[in-house]
Amino acid sequence: MKFIIEKDYASMSRVAANILLGEMYRDRRVNLAITAGSTPVKMYEYLVEDVKGKDYLTNVHYYNFDEIPVIGENGYGVTMGNLDKLYFSPAAISAEQIHVLDENNYLQQDERIKDDGGLDLILLGIGADGHYCGNLPGTTKFENMTSQVSVDATPGMRDILIEEVGGDASKCPDYYVTMGPASVMQSKRILLFATGAKKAAIIRQAFFGPVTNDVPSSLLQTHPNITILLDEAAAAEIQDLL
Amino acid sequence: MKFIIEKDYASMSRVAANILLGEMYRDRRVNLAITAGSTPVKMYEYLVEDVKGKDYLTNVHYYNFDEIPVIGENGYGVTMGNLDKLYFSPAAISAEQIHVLDENNYLQQDERIKDDGGLDLILLGIGADGHYCGNLPGTTKFENMTSQVSVDATPGMRDILIEEVGGDASKCPDYYVTMGPASVMQSKRILLFATGAKKAAIIRQAFFGPVTNDVPSSLLQTHPNITILLDEAAAAEIQDLL
Amino acid sequence: MKFIIEKDYASMSRVAANILLGEMYRDRRVNLAITAGSTPVKMYEYLVEDVKGKDYLTNVHYYNFDEIPVIGENGYGVTMGNLDKLYFSPAAISAEQIHVLDENNYLQQDERIKDDGGLDLILLGIGADGHYCGNLPGTTKFENMTSQVSVDATPGMRDILIEEVGGDASKCPDYYVTMGPASVMQSKRILLFATGAKKAAIIRQAFFGPVTNDVPSSLLQTHPNITILLDEAAAAEIQDLL
Amino acid sequence: MKFIIEKDYASMSRVAANILLGEMYRDRRVNLAITAGSTPVKMYEYLVEDVKGKDYLTNVHYYNFDEIPVIGENGYGVTMGNLDKLYFSPAAISAEQIHVLDENNYLQQDERIKDDGGLDLILLGIGADGHYCGNLPGTTKFENMTSQVSVDATPGMRDILIEEVGGDASKCPDYYVTMGPASVMQSKRILLFATGAKKAAIIRQAFFGPVTNDVPSSLLQTHPNITILLDEAAAAEIQDLL
Repeated sequence: MKFIIEKDYASMSRVAANILLGEMYRDRRVNLAITAGSTPVKMYEYLVEDVKGKDYLTNVHYYNFDEIPVIGENGYGVTMGNLDKLYFSPAAISAEQIHVLDENNYLQQDERIKDDGGLDLILLGIGADGHYCGNLPGTTKFENMTSQVSVDATPGMRDILIEEVGGDASKCPDYYVTMGPASVMQSKRILLFATGAKKAAIIRQAFFGPVTNDVPSSLLQTHPNITILLDEAAAAEIQDLL
Repeated sequence: MKFIIEKDYASMSRVAANILLGEMYRDRRVNLAITAGSTPVKMYEYLVEDVKGKDYLTNVHYYNFDEIPVIGENGYGVTMGNLDKLYFSPAAISAEQIHVLDENNYLQQDERIKDDGGLDLILLGIGADGHYCGNLPGTTKFENMTSQVSVDATPGMRDILIEEVGGDASKCPDYYVTMGPASVMQSKRILLFATGAKKAAIIRQAFFGPVTNDVPSSLLQTHPNITILLDEAAAAEIQDLL
Repeated sequence: MKFIIEKDYASMSRVAANILLGEMYRDRRVNLAITAGSTPVKMYEYLVEDVKGKDYLTNVHYYNFDEIPVIGENGYGVTMGNLDKLYFSPAAISAEQIHVLDENNYLQQDERIKDDGGLDLILLGIGADGHYCGNLPGTTKFENMTSQVSVDATPGMRDILIEEVGGDASKCPDYYVTMGPASVMQSKRILLFATGAKKAAIIRQAFFGPVTNDVPSSLLQTHPNITILLDEAAAAEIQDLL
Repeated sequence: MKFIIEKDYASMSRVAANILLGEMYRDRRVNLAITAGSTPVKMYEYLVEDVKGKDYLTNVHYYNFDEIPVIGENGYGVTMGNLDKLYFSPAAISAEQIHVLDENNYLQQDERIKDDGGLDLILLGIGADGHYCGNLPGTTKFENMTSQVSVDATPGMRDILIEEVGGDASKCPDYYVTMGPASVMQSKRILLFATGAKKAAIIRQAFFGPVTNDVPSSLLQTHPNITILLDEAAAAEIQDLL
């Protein structure tokens, strides 16, 4: 594990963008799985500047690693809708470079990625409960590759999914799909980033505590090429351990 | 995971030697951690032929990944004694290429390997109980780097260690040392091999069952670059899964 | 440059096979460009043993790097006909793994290889005149990618080509095709091998003399990852330089 | 070859910094050879911002690739003096991370770099005469590793060197040292950058013309992993070729 600690959210976001760019400037196909959510908002602002209109970056291919279908709507699910708004549209990424995972093709996700040459990097956020992608405590297990997770997987899951689809229970799907822990671990490199004091406790637990399904991200500490990128607030509880 | 299934012990041993040789023929330093025990006996017979006296292979550096000290004796512990007999002496490997792990330096093992550029490959056997290196059920945990394990770690450990040191209880150490699961996972590549029907059940359990500390090798199924090399007898219970 | 010197043709051929096998045992697509001719005969004998019927090696893809069309005949040209006889047929390599270069598609060869992920290794022989592939003195230049070479390129070329197509002048093509020096240099790794006293002088000239188009293989000494594999007879004139 | 063309000097310098940073953010030792001169001035301004005080970048090691000794002065030669002023001092790089090449140790440069694991990237500028490092037309040859070049190597060399040492002929050395073409080609990756209309003609000649010692940088077009980074002015004469 390599820890990179930056002063604040902005500088952390700049380093995250730099690490992704460092993978992109290659003379070969590059495969990146990237995260939606709130943590990457500023990073995508930076990236859009560096990527938009650059035809020398058409070698970069993008994958989403989870998806929540929205019942009754056509088009993207929650994750791809968010990625499209934050990055793909403003950066004008072409359709040929975007490889959508959804509820219809999730059983092919792992083999498709392998056929494409494997992921060069997967960018992950982390939840205060230790989840990443759709791997929440009580849903997937370490041995799972890309899987579906039922709305009944945990007591609180239905409420989570209703919130994700915008608060309308009629749009709540019966299941979502996610790359599982074993699937994420196949990436050649993992970049996990976190910002803010709310993440300080889980960072210590996930990367310096026991490897247990109760903290799904704890498995990632065993990956041979993982970088943990934090701002000082998120790193507050591990400073004595570095 | 890549599975390689060969007809019998001899052909499996030949492929194991070939995979190691494939790593060795490089124009740079190559770091290999290799296993003692009975599974590799024939592989070392082949390797000695291919390595002995070849000055173009002085770029290869060797590491042992566990050690059982023998009380009252100078010189190598059980593992290094075995490696020396099976390979280092017959292949005439020079002392500069051999990097000994023992009870005195185990706290430096992980940093030393990282400073040396990391392991290019670690060669592992597997026990019928799912252990590899000194990671037996009830001893280390997934999050452990190189560690010591007490003779009191499990009820049967004292008997195991007495047998390992030759049956003489007065030579039994208070603890042995081993690269832990998280430490092994740092290797760029893992090669795990097994022979014979006695290993068939654990192969299925370790690589197609849950990732659990009860089966220490089950963690390895999440490594991004692992090859499982088996003879047909050891692969007997996974043929339906491949 | 890494030099590997083996006692005789048989042991040199065994190491060549081992190096190729070392590339093959991967959990991803592997792209190899391989040579026809007399030098590799024994190596292919070894390889056929190790490769035939092994379904765990279907990840390996093969490319020829030059071709001499035979006028009036359907089917393979001289190079592919030779590779088929020496290796593809006896090793039962499937058609999906064989990527034919010929006079019709040579303008796509470099882009096709790049789209396939690039060559992991190209295996080359060397002529007493310093040629490799179809890069003979007076034909291609260092800056050439895959190109055609006219039967009139050099005074002796027509006779060479007539001999290559079996001695019948009516079968002699107007041109042949070859990966050029710049194209060969794009491979991630180069393995060049030679056997016998007839090659001793050119080995010294090509790898310890000036880089000049007069000795096409002299460019290869600048490649960042090249291995020169020789038997003692071929290495006779460089022993003082190693 | 991958071509990256940016609008102007500032954006080109930003991408150059990003590519170097992309190499730096690794969980292992990283070896970079970097260039002095005027082209990198703005890139170093950016880099200093991103590197200064970042203890997570102490894994990065720096090498200079040429040196002009200044007679009668202690301390750094021309190149290291320039690098120190532009980058090492303002970025507060520690002495342990800086590996000086000079007239006393140049014969060890290639072996030292190889022992250190090889260069991950070498950053090069290009002169209007096609030179890079100290490889000017009429000085080194493609087959040269790190070498010394005499003040009498070419008719104009003495004047060049006097200018380099500040215009005082009494400080002019008898020779300078440089990594030669074959030495530069050993780097795993090459980044060559150029700015301004004065470089437009040589860019076309070096990367789309013949590979010849008359244009030392022409050899670099054969490297398997080279990126050419230009602003639009420097790319003006190759737009029809891309």
